[in-house]
Amino acid sequence: MKLILAVVQDKDANRLVDALAEQNFQSTKLSSTGGFLREGNTTLMIGIDDDHVDKALDVIKNNCSQREQMVAPISPMGGNADSYIPKPVKIEVGGATVFVLPIDSFFQF
Amino acid sequence: MKLILAVVQDKDANRLVDALAEQNFQSTKLSSTGGFLREGNTTLMIGIDDDHVDKALDVIKNNCSQREQMVAPISPMGGNADSYIPKPVKIEVGGATVFVLPIDSFFQF
Amino acid sequence: MKLILAVVQDKDANRLVDALAEQNFQSTKLSSTGGFLREGNTTLMIGIDDDHVDKALDVIKNNCSQREQMVAPISPMGGNADSYIPKPVKIEVGGATVFVLPIDSFFQF
Ligand code: NI
Ligand code: NI
Ligand code: NI
Repeated sequence: MKLILAVVQDKDANRLVDALAEQNFQSTKLSSTGGFLREGNTTLMIGIDDDHVDKALDVIKNNCSQREQMVAPISPMGGNADSYIPKPVKIEVGGATVFVLPIDSFFQF
Repeated sequence: MKLILAVVQDKDANRLVDALAEQNFQSTKLSSTGGFLREGNTTLMIGIDDDHVDKALDVIKNNCSQREQMVAPISPMGGNADSYIPKPVKIEVGGATVFVLPIDSFFQF
Repeated sequence: MKLILAVVQDKDANRLVDALAEQNFQSTKLSSTGGFLREGNTTLMIGIDDDHVDKALDVIKNNCSQREQMVAPISPMGGNADSYIPKPVKIEVGGATVFVLPIDSFFQF
């Protein structure tokens, strides 16, 4: 048995929890901020059998990998709005920092 | 020394912290949600000497085990309230998911 | 690679995160309460190479050690405020409880 700690962006957290649940992998969310990723991240704790660690890592990778997204920029305040043509901007979103920890023992009461 | 991570229901968390403190076991609460248990759970971190792990597990078991509780159901909206006899409903409460982790080293500054 | 879990007082947390960042040590904050320290503490997760653990512990020690602080007491309600000479009071602040955990594997996606 292992304990996976995965720090992911808030926006990816619920999709990840659902994708893990589809594999019958239970997770608990801890609210966290800053550091490994931009503000607004979530740390998931996932208790998992040794032989399922690779599958869980795949699920995390598939749902949280860092990727580029085009977003519409905020239009400038004031100025002539009619002549302003917003140009989509590319930003990095997602990403996961994952620790796999050994466990001495595991209990459910 | 070990680190115990115990995910318990919010309603059991304070009683558990007090019961641990009676044994001089210090704990820190992390707010957490979903997953191992129903919504509204708390993750306790407990740093503990190897020879006290079993005692701490007993305290967790005694204060957080899954158990049945009879609750009065909500009376139905509308309808004839006079003729409605609420029948207590049995629900599962509590439960604890516990990981005992090895520690390389421990410090207090 | 190790995972450092450091429970520190809220008032020391941001200074610690900045001091760690100056050494290129990334950290994630988990909100936590009670237990090891007075109410209002923060748990930092720091993923770190084995050969940097000592440096990280130094940074924690230098920014979060328990220390004494003189604070102005609240002046008494009512009474003759003119004749009241507030005497600074010494209180303990800070402190850190630190666990260094082994890691089986580490990933960034
Ligand atoms: Ni299997
Ligand atoms: Ni003892
Ligand atoms: Ni180095």
